[in-house]
Amino acid sequence: MNEQLDKIRHSTSHVMAYAVRELFGDVKFAIGPTIDDGFYYDFDLGEKTFSPEDLKAIEKKMEELIRRKLPFEKSESTIAEALKKMSTQPYKQELIKDLEVSGETSVSFYTVGDLTDLCRGPHVENTSELGHFKLLRAAGAYWRGDAKNKMLQRIYGTAFATKNELQQHLKMLEEAEKRDHNKLGRELGLFITAEPIGQGLPLLTPKGTKIKQILQRWIEDEEEKRGYQLTMTPFMAKSDLYKISGHWDHYRDGMFLVDGSGEEMALRPMTCPFQFMIYKSQLRSYRDLPIRYNETSTLFRNEESGEMHGLIRLRQFTLSEGHLICRMNQLEEEFEGVLKLIDYVLKTLKLENYSYRFSKWDPANKKGKYIDAPQAWEESQAVLKKILDKNGLNYVEAEGEAAFYGPKLDIQMKNVYGKEDTIITVQIDFALPERFDMNYINEEGMEERPIIIHRSSVGCYERTIALLIEQFAGAFPTWLSPNQVTVIPISEKFSNYALRVAEKLKSSADIRLEVDDSNESLGKRIRNAEKEKTPYILVVGEKEAESGTVAVRKRGDGDQGVIPLEDFIKNIKQEIENKV
Amino acid sequence: MNEQLDKIRHSTSHVMAYAVRELFGDVKFAIGPTIDDGFYYDFDLGEKTFSPEDLKAIEKKMEELIRRKLPFEKSESTIAEALKKMSTQPYKQELIKDLEVSGETSVSFYTVGDLTDLCRGPHVENTSELGHFKLLRAAGAYWRGDAKNKMLQRIYGTAFATKNELQQHLKMLEEAEKRDHNKLGRELGLFITAEPIGQGLPLLTPKGTKIKQILQRWIEDEEEKRGYQLTMTPFMAKSDLYKISGHWDHYRDGMFLVDGSGEEMALRPMTCPFQFMIYKSQLRSYRDLPIRYNETSTLFRNEESGEMHGLIRLRQFTLSEGHLICRMNQLEEEFEGVLKLIDYVLKTLKLENYSYRFSKWDPANKKGKYIDAPQAWEESQAVLKKILDKNGLNYVEAEGEAAFYGPKLDIQMKNVYGKEDTIITVQIDFALPERFDMNYINEEGMEERPIIIHRSSVGCYERTIALLIEQFAGAFPTWLSPNQVTVIPISEKFSNYALRVAEKLKSSADIRLEVDDSNESLGKRIRNAEKEKTPYILVVGEKEAESGTVAVRKRGDGDQGVIPLEDFIKNIKQEIENKV
Repeated sequence: MNEQLDKIRHSTSHVMAYAVRELFGDVKFAIGPTIDDGFYYDFDLGEKTFSPEDLKAIEKKMEELIRRKLPFEKSESTIAEALKKMSTQPYKQELIKDLEVSGETSVSFYTVGDLTDLCRGPHVENTSELGHFKLLRAAGAYWRGDAKNKMLQRIYGTAFATKNELQQHLKMLEEAEKRDHNKLGRELGLFITAEPIGQGLPLLTPKGTKIKQILQRWIEDEEEKRGYQLTMTPFMAKSDLYKISGHWDHYRDGMFLVDGSGEEMALRPMTCPFQFMIYKSQLRSYRDLPIRYNETSTLFRNEESGEMHGLIRLRQFTLSEGHLICRMNQLEEEFEGVLKLIDYVLKTLKLENYSYRFSKWDPANKKGKYIDAPQAWEESQAVLKKILDKNGLNYVEAEGEAAFYGPKLDIQMKNVYGKEDTIITVQIDFALPERFDMNYINEEGMEERPIIIHRSSVGCYERTIALLIEQFAGAFPTWLSPNQVTVIPISEKFSNYALRVAEKLKSSADIRLEVDDSNESLGKRIRNAEKEKTPYILVVGEKEAESGTVAVRKRGDGDQGVIPLEDFIKNIKQEIENKV
Repeated sequence: MNEQLDKIRHSTSHVMAYAVRELFGDVKFAIGPTIDDGFYYDFDLGEKTFSPEDLKAIEKKMEELIRRKLPFEKSESTIAEALKKMSTQPYKQELIKDLEVSGETSVSFYTVGDLTDLCRGPHVENTSELGHFKLLRAAGAYWRGDAKNKMLQRIYGTAFATKNELQQHLKMLEEAEKRDHNKLGRELGLFITAEPIGQGLPLLTPKGTKIKQILQRWIEDEEEKRGYQLTMTPFMAKSDLYKISGHWDHYRDGMFLVDGSGEEMALRPMTCPFQFMIYKSQLRSYRDLPIRYNETSTLFRNEESGEMHGLIRLRQFTLSEGHLICRMNQLEEEFEGVLKLIDYVLKTLKLENYSYRFSKWDPANKKGKYIDAPQAWEESQAVLKKILDKNGLNYVEAEGEAAFYGPKLDIQMKNVYGKEDTIITVQIDFALPERFDMNYINEEGMEERPIIIHRSSVGCYERTIALLIEQFAGAFPTWLSPNQVTVIPISEKFSNYALRVAEKLKSSADIRLEVDDSNESLGKRIRNAEKEKTPYILVVGEKEAESGTVAVRKRGDGDQGVIPLEDFIKNIKQEIENKV
C-alpha cells in the first residue's frame, strides 16, 4: 500500500472513532489500524453491539465531520502525561504502559476535532483529503485477540483516494462475496457448523462428503500409481512420542492435550512420527529406499476461537500427507517427483494461480522456535535452493517461515478476497531422522541415516474444497459434482420414463443424479436444478420417451438439443473420466 | 461349565498357589478364580516376574503336591478372626473387609496341605481328583483391574477331568494360536504397535491399510447403492453436545476429555448426535423420510490399559456407523433392510458363524445406567421383539446389555479361542429424537417426531479385520489380499518378461503384485511367497516368455499348469469381481 493511501485509511479510522463517540457517548477505544484492504477500529461499548442501521448512522456522521475540513494535529506527551490524558481509557493506558516497557519515554497523540487519540501517525493534513470510504461490517473481536479477554466490537471499513477506486473495490468485494466459500458452501448445502459442537469443527453434509470422497479416492489411487504406500495410523499418542519429535518443546501450545487414564497424551498435529514408527518396525536396506508413505491424515490444531473460519482455519482437518524416506543421492529425483505430482494435482483441479515461497529459518530468532542445529539448517537450505534453481522455479524467499525442524517450499494461493495462504508445503528434513534414530543398511553393511521429504499433494482437503468452491463459484466440474444430472419429466405422465433414464444412468455409468418429478411447474424445477449448479438437466416428455432420447441442458451453455440417451451416457462418461 | 469341572479347576488353582509359595517363599496372594477355559491366580512377589522356566518348575511342584493326595478342608471364621488369620496377606484382608461391608459376618477358608486360603469353595475332596492340568502363560495384571493399583503377576492355567480332554483342549489352543490375529497379524506385517504411541493405538502398515481401504470403499459403495448418504463429521465436540445426548451423564468415564483453549470438550464415542445436527440443519418433510445416513466413523473410548488387546479392544477405532431416521410405519421395513445388509456383508466376508442377542435394559438397575423412561423402553423393546419374531430370527435375550438410550440387537461371534464378542449392533431409539428435538412436517403440516435406528454393517473395521485374519488364518480371499500375485522369473534372464507380465496385470486388471527377481534360489522365492499367503504365484521362464504364458501356482491348490497370461487375467478379474 502506498503511503498516501495508508494515511487516508488510518485517518478515516480516526474519523470513525470520533463519529462513534459522537453517537454513542461513553466509548472505550482499543486499537484502529489499517489492514491490507482497509481499516478497522475496536470499541468497548459495554453490552452494545452494532446493527447495520448503526453503521449507516456512523457513516452519515463521518461524512458530516469530514465536510468540516478538520485538521489532524500532532502533539507529544511524556508517559506520565499520556497516562493522565487517557485516564478514562483503560485500553489506551495499557498500550502506553507497553510502550514504556519497550523503552519509550514519550508518545504522540493526534487530535481531529475534539477527539484526541494515542497514535504514531502519520495522518493526512485535513479531512478534506478523505471522503471515499465505506463501512463494511461489524464483528466481535477479543482484546489483543485473546479469548480470555473481553470481547470488543470491531467495525471494518475501507477507504480510497478516489470515488472510482472505491467503487471498483466494492464491486470486487461483491463478486468475491458471491464466491466466498463460507457463504456459498453453506448455501449449496456442502457443510454446516453447529453451536453445541463448537467452532472450527465443520460437518460435511452428504454433498460435501461426496466431493471429499471423490478427491480422496483420486489422490490415494494416483499416489499409489506413483509408488506411494498408504498407512492408517492413530490420531493420538503419549507425550513420549512428541518429546522425541520435538513437538512437545516447540509446538505444545498448538496441540490438544488429552486426559487418558492417567497417561499424558495429545492429539496429533502431524503424522510424521507415526509413519517413522512403521519405518522403524523393520530392518531396512538401501535396496528398500526410497520408501514413499502417504496417509489421508486427520490432524488437530488447538486454534484460538478468533482464528477459525469456514473450511480454512479448523481445529480438525484432513491432510494428504506423505513422507519420502530416501538416500542423499535420491533426494533430487524424489523432490522433483513431488513437484510433478503437485503440478498434476493442481492442474487437474484447475487451481493454477499459485506461486512458490522458499521458507527459511531465522538464525537471529532461533530460540525455542527452531531445532538448534545451524549446520543442518544451512545444509538443507542449500540443497533445497539448488533443487529449486535447477528446476527453474520462480520463488520468493521468506525468512522465519520454516517449520521448526526444517526449511520448506510453500505453494501459495490467493483466495477470492486476494488474501494469500499456504496450501501445500514440501520440506527437506535432516533433523528428525536423527532424533528418531532412523537407519538403513548400506552396500557395505553399515548403518546410514536416511533423509526425509515431508510433503502434501492436494493439501488439506477442507481448504482445497474451499478454494474449489471459490474457483468454480460452486459450479464444480462434472467429475466433482455431488449431483451430476437432474432428470425432469415434463409432466407426471413421463415420471416412469424419467425413472428408467435414471436407472440406466446409474447402472451403466454410475452417475450421481436426482429425479425431480415433484408438483412444481417445469420452469420452476429447471430453475431449481440450475440454482443448485447441476452440470446437466435432462428434460423428458412424450417425444423423448418414444425415441429413447433426452433433451439436454448443459450448465452455462443452455439447451443442447435432443440426443439419444446412449450418446449422452457416452459423452458424460468420457467427460468424467477425463476430469474436465 | 459343569460343577465338577469347576471344582477341578478351582482346586488346581489353590494347588498352584501352594506350589508358588513353596518355591518362592514370601508371596502375597490376590485372587484365583476359574474362567471360561481354565483358571488363573494373581500373585504379588515384589519385583519378580515369572519366566517360562518358573512355570515348568511350578508345574513340577504341583504334580508332586497332587501325588500326596492332600485333602481340601473347609473352616469358618468370624470377620475378626479372618483378618487376624490373614495378617500377612493385605489383598486377602481387603477382600475380607469388602465382605464385611456387604453384610457378611463370617467367611470360609479352605486348607490344602499347609496352605489356608480365603475361599467360598466348593472344592474337590482330595488332590487325587486332580492331575490333568497345564500352566499356559504368565502376564501382568493390575490389582482389581485398575491401572492406579499395583501390577501383580498372573499365571493362567487350565485343567480337565481326563487326560484326553486336556490334550484336545491344548491342541485346540495350539491351532487357535496359529490363527490368533494379534500374533499372525503382526507376522504378516498387517499392523504394529509402538511403545511411545501407547496401548490400544495400533498402526496399520501399508498391507493392513490396503485391507481396510478395500473394505471401506466396498461398504461405502454398497451402502450408497442401498440409499445411504455418507457424512464426514468432526471427532470432537464441546460438552454441550454430550449433555444433550446424555453421554455426559451416562458415559463420561468412557470418553477422552480434551483441553481446548478453555472450552470443555471431548473426543466422541459415537457419531449419532453429529449426524442429528445435519438432520436438524434443514426443515424436513415426511416426503424426505426415511433418511439413511452413514459414516466411516472414527471413535474413541477411554479404555483401561489392561483391557486393550490387538485390534479388538482399542482406544481409537473405525466403525461403519449409520443412523436411519424414519416414521413409525417405516420402522419395520428399514429394520429389515438393515438385517439384509448385515447378512449380505457377513456372507460376502464368509463370517457366517454368528448368532443374535436381544439386549434389553434392566429395570431393576436403571439408576445412572439407562435413560429413565420406562414406557419408551417397554415400547421400543416390544417393537424390536415383534420384528425379530416376524423375521424368524433365532435369538437369546440378555437383560441389562442395552445401550443407555435403547434396546438393541447384537450380532455375536466367537473368536478362535471360543470367546464370544459383539461385532455388530442394531438399535431402536425413541429417546434421542426427543432429547435433540428432532422433527419432520407430516401430511397435515404438523410437527412429528421421527424414530431412529442406530446400526453398523461391517462393524468396527479393526475388529472385523481381526476376525478375518483368524477366519482365513491370514490366507485372505484374492479381492482382500494386500498382495494378490507374486511374479517369479526362474532366472535373471527372464526378469524382463516378469516385469512385462507385471505391467500387463496392473494396467489391464489393477492387480496388486510383487515381482521377486532377487538373488535367492527359485525354491526359496516360491516358499517366501507361500509364507506370505499370496493367492497366486506366477513362475516364468523361457517357455512362458516365448509363448506369452505363465505357470500358475494357486495358494492351497498348488500347480495349475501353464496358461496364457490373458486367460489368467480374465480368471483373476472375475474372481476379484465376485469376491470369492
